[in-house]
Amino acid sequence: MNPDLRRERAAATFNPELITHILDGSPEKTRRRREIENLIMNDPDFQHEDYNFLTRSQRYEVAVKKSASMVKKLREFGIADPDEIMWFKKLQLVNFVEPVGLNYSMFIPTLLNQGTTAQQEKWLHSSKGLQIIGTYAQTEMGHGTHLRGLETTATYDPKTQEFILNSPTVTSIKWWPGGLGKTSNHAIVLAQLFTQGKCYGLHAFIVPIREIGTHKPLPGITVGDIGPKFGYEEMDNGYLKMDNYRIPRENMLMKYAQVKPDGTYVKPLSDKLTYGTMVFVRSFLVGEAARSLSKACTIAIRYSAVRHQSEIKPGEPEPQILDFQTQQYKLFPLLATAYAFQFVGAYMKETYHRINEGIGQGDLSELPELHALTAGLKAFTTWTANAAIEECRMACGGHGYSHSSGIPNIYVTFTPACTFEGENTVMMLQTARFLMKSYDHVHSGELVCGMVSYLNDLPSQRIQPQQVAVWPTVVDINSPDSLTEAYKLRAARLVDIAAKNLRNEVSHRKSKEVAWNLTSVDLVRASEAHCHYVVVKLFSEKLLKIQDKSIQAVLRNLCLLYCLYGISQKAGDFLQGNIMTGSQITQVNQRIMELLTIIRPNAVALVDAFDFKDVTLGSVLGRYDGNVYENLFEWAKKSPLNQTEVHESYYKHLKPLQSKL
Amino acid sequence: MNPDLRRERAAATFNPELITHILDGSPEKTRRRREIENLIMNDPDFQHEDYNFLTRSQRYEVAVKKSASMVKKLREFGIADPDEIMWFKKLQLVNFVEPVGLNYSMFIPTLLNQGTTAQQEKWLHSSKGLQIIGTYAQTEMGHGTHLRGLETTATYDPKTQEFILNSPTVTSIKWWPGGLGKTSNHAIVLAQLFTQGKCYGLHAFIVPIREIGTHKPLPGITVGDIGPKFGYEEMDNGYLKMDNYRIPRENMLMKYAQVKPDGTYVKPLSDKLTYGTMVFVRSFLVGEAARSLSKACTIAIRYSAVRHQSEIKPGEPEPQILDFQTQQYKLFPLLATAYAFQFVGAYMKETYHRINEGIGQGDLSELPELHALTAGLKAFTTWTANAAIEECRMACGGHGYSHSSGIPNIYVTFTPACTFEGENTVMMLQTARFLMKSYDHVHSGELVCGMVSYLNDLPSQRIQPQQVAVWPTVVDINSPDSLTEAYKLRAARLVDIAAKNLRNEVSHRKSKEVAWNLTSVDLVRASEAHCHYVVVKLFSEKLLKIQDKSIQAVLRNLCLLYCLYGISQKAGDFLQGNIMTGSQITQVNQRIMELLTIIRPNAVALVDAFDFKDVTLGSVLGRYDGNVYENLFEWAKKSPLNQTEVHESYYKHLKPLQSKL
Repeated sequence: MNPDLRRERAAATFNPELITHILDGSPEKTRRRREIENLIMNDPDFQHEDYNFLTRSQRYEVAVKKSASMVKKLREFGIADPDEIMWFKKLQLVNFVEPVGLNYSMFIPTLLNQGTTAQQEKWLHSSKGLQIIGTYAQTEMGHGTHLRGLETTATYDPKTQEFILNSPTVTSIKWWPGGLGKTSNHAIVLAQLFTQGKCYGLHAFIVPIREIGTHKPLPGITVGDIGPKFGYEEMDNGYLKMDNYRIPRENMLMKYAQVKPDGTYVKPLSDKLTYGTMVFVRSFLVGEAARSLSKACTIAIRYSAVRHQSEIKPGEPEPQILDFQTQQYKLFPLLATAYAFQFVGAYMKETYHRINEGIGQGDLSELPELHALTAGLKAFTTWTANAAIEECRMACGGHGYSHSSGIPNIYVTFTPACTFEGENTVMMLQTARFLMKSYDHVHSGELVCGMVSYLNDLPSQRIQPQQVAVWPTVVDINSPDSLTEAYKLRAARLVDIAAKNLRNEVSHRKSKEVAWNLTSVDLVRASEAHCHYVVVKLFSEKLLKIQDKSIQAVLRNLCLLYCLYGISQKAGDFLQGNIMTGSQITQVNQRIMELLTIIRPNAVALVDAFDFKDVTLGSVLGRYDGNVYENLFEWAKKSPLNQTEVHESYYKHLKPLQSKL
Repeated sequence: MNPDLRRERAAATFNPELITHILDGSPEKTRRRREIENLIMNDPDFQHEDYNFLTRSQRYEVAVKKSASMVKKLREFGIADPDEIMWFKKLQLVNFVEPVGLNYSMFIPTLLNQGTTAQQEKWLHSSKGLQIIGTYAQTEMGHGTHLRGLETTATYDPKTQEFILNSPTVTSIKWWPGGLGKTSNHAIVLAQLFTQGKCYGLHAFIVPIREIGTHKPLPGITVGDIGPKFGYEEMDNGYLKMDNYRIPRENMLMKYAQVKPDGTYVKPLSDKLTYGTMVFVRSFLVGEAARSLSKACTIAIRYSAVRHQSEIKPGEPEPQILDFQTQQYKLFPLLATAYAFQFVGAYMKETYHRINEGIGQGDLSELPELHALTAGLKAFTTWTANAAIEECRMACGGHGYSHSSGIPNIYVTFTPACTFEGENTVMMLQTARFLMKSYDHVHSGELVCGMVSYLNDLPSQRIQPQQVAVWPTVVDINSPDSLTEAYKLRAARLVDIAAKNLRNEVSHRKSKEVAWNLTSVDLVRASEAHCHYVVVKLFSEKLLKIQDKSIQAVLRNLCLLYCLYGISQKAGDFLQGNIMTGSQITQVNQRIMELLTIIRPNAVALVDAFDFKDVTLGSVLGRYDGNVYENLFEWAKKSPLNQTEVHESYYKHLKPLQSKL
């Protein structure tokens, strides 16, 4: 093991294994995760091929091979639990994605959620067995988040009992679905349903796109790859154009809405039910934000412990860069954020499953809040993690820019999460809509519950608008509970401001929609403050559930740092709201510096606790073993440009120039 | 022309051509720039090959070809002025870099700055003629910004009158120099000079690394490519290891320091003189930050004018996304920043040339401030532009993630600027060192001049520490001058705090160095505030020099937006310093929203004024002509994955799985 890292580990005040158990959920889950990871590590067939040295076409080829091998191995090892599949895949894929992934993450779940029992019987077996390789085709070139704008049509023809699918414009071409370009032979296509001369909005259809066996695109189908991207190079994100393409009536997913053989449309009991997959994916993305940021922190903090540079005390050996206050100030708040998001991710997962069970029993009461919460937290966590990953990369100096660090690939694989499954600004405005509704409820005398219950305390304030400023609180900057209160007051204030500005715009303009647009920056600000409060609250509450005192102390410091750093960054909000005074903000900044020093000896152990084996595989800077610089040199030698000593480009292009002299 | 863009252009309140003249420096310069750009556009040999569809090795090959062709064309067209060469290259390279570039940007300038007349006579002609292809090898695997830590040694042997170059450790291997891996046959190597048993620190040596004619690495030289990176894929950033490699004494650049034939060391008159290249490159990077951000804004704003999505008023056609307040709030402050940095870049260039002339005449008096200013502004502008380019990308939604947008390549080509030529945090601390020195001067009764002259007003405040809070100013949020005052007060306050905290730490600790480290977050904050003030000041002063009233009005609004947006983002500083009140901050936020509406009709014309022909070449979303979606579809068809209808990966990996069912 690297001597710097060994020394760091010996100096930690706690046993990281205990935190690993908390992050996994239980010691038993940690054990099982490692068991599965060891299946991979000990599998003689497992080879970690570094995509960085491959061309795009080679990357795609290797990724398909990996997809296929994972399917085989999962069958062989009998792994079927969703968590276990995820652990298995994460380690296999390192920082990348797989072309067949959508079959399992979108095609099959949508079939299960929206297909009838008969439809599931017909398609589930073959899609699980990969006879059908499915993807999910929703986004079009012209429309993404705004679903109502999608233009693909599915027109029912009662004569043949078929739907006729069409891409009527260039903008209606399906664009982006993963695995669509080359890999899939089926897609669940979202299209505007027309029957009996009327449009009934978006519905899902199972559409065969390539012939099974030959894999050739079927007549009427134009399909291909959408071209190179920032990341996801090994994925064939694709386009799909359909021209009078006919599918049987039974290919419409009919668990909720139906089209009868004669073309009669039967509408679903509730619109909300089809939100299920969306809510699930968004709550999953919160966990992904946590995981991606945790990986980037692992690399940056380990590297900062190994890298020696410059001087603090003259004449002494070069210090670890982790001893520079500026480096600590860059990385430790991000580490604290990674932990915060880990706990929020776990909470979202639990909540989703709890509410989903309720939905199974017909209880939809908590769905609106869950929907609003996942939208906002998806945006809040992915935006934060996105910027933070890049900060981690740049905290590694020049080496962060090399693919050897692994961080560029973590970034480009993660950053689409800010855009897909609901563009983040749009998500924030969805949360704002819920906040405004809740605010109106309170205003009309109803109490609201859940995470927005703080709004119940607002109306009394509103009677005397000048007094909103005087909050009955003295913030204790060493108490996570008190800081949670401070964040709550900030959220309440910004929701209040947004609501009043919205009302003011409404009173001056004709339409509510125009007023909404003219208040939208305030609304996003309110949503962000609400989400920030939720994260702080969940982190603080998590502390109470931790038994071990040494662990509690360590996590408490991270929680404090997370809270105080946020206050320091948004000091204006806390000052303007009279939640804190100027001298308290000064104290906050001083306390942050103290916390950096307190956290310093535990920093490496805190990233070890994430227990990422894929970091060791995917990053030279994030590895445990040996000399980071020797590893870097070995890695560089594999560069495709090093495969010849003299490059023919020299002879072709440069030498002729020289001889002209 | 695209109908949306035509409509936008018709609606502008000013003629963008007039701003183009200001940005270029004069109408004559605009004319000459376009003349040179047209040489390229009309050249039948000019082909814009899209690197996005190529493998790394192909990209390198095409880039070398392009480098060679540029050398030929520059000779052919007789272009020799540095600005004109830059215009020529920018358009040729679009968003990319060239392997031979370092020969012209670093090798030749260093030879000119640090070589004797004899040395220039010996090497200049062949390097201009590309007989010598040179690069600049400073950074090592183990050390970048901290120059004293570099480990490469050059030991003088008086017997043979040679220097013996060695890379004594793995960390001493030269790492990163552009064009080193495959392209160059010479490098200027920075090494610790040893003579007569003593080390005299870093000096520059001309080192042949490959044989001219065969291009084979010379004996004792190990050289290669450092492997794939986030960007710069077409560049062979390289490594260099030297083992007892001998070069003649004359290969040490001896304009300042010298080693006599017997090994006697003659030290230079001033250490500062070798900073020249560094200061030049850093001030150039400020301009690069402006250019890269301006390009990203051009793409994002044009696309936002063309993209229609969602609804503001129900029943009406989908609006341009540029009509959403949130989109304006994302993009217009960045546009204002791009303009601010354009003017700062122009100022830096002028100032560099002015002071450099002084240096030529032996006047070094302004060098320390110039050095401090370029360090801080390099960091301030590159950090800001870096985050802003990514915001532009994400403001384009999903399409921003595709390489068709051009923004990912702008980003990955630009982002190293935060790290190279002085890591940004280190740069901020260099500026802080100058601020602390100036502060101490004032404290000891001396006046300081230049950009830091505001510190002269501080000591009177310091007599009554409680009164620092009461500034004698009422900020007029509609006056750029008054806002500049506010930024000045913020800077003065943060410099004051940092200085006092530093003094406090010194009084508690033994060493100044430890105290410096424990204050470094405050010091960076002070430097940032100082740089922010300088940017605001330069933008405000620029307005006064603009004759045309319509142009002045437009730029004044951008300047106000830049100032007010910064205040809104850093409201805590302005509130804590009692520079502004809470209700003024509320007014600032309202005024920002008004400015968004005011700027909206001019947004497209404001990016047109940047007049980037390479945006049209390098970005589908940033083009003027035709239908953006049709262009996108045409672009995607060129994807390497689309060159076969059925991919063999299917037959190799997926079909066998299917048949197992």
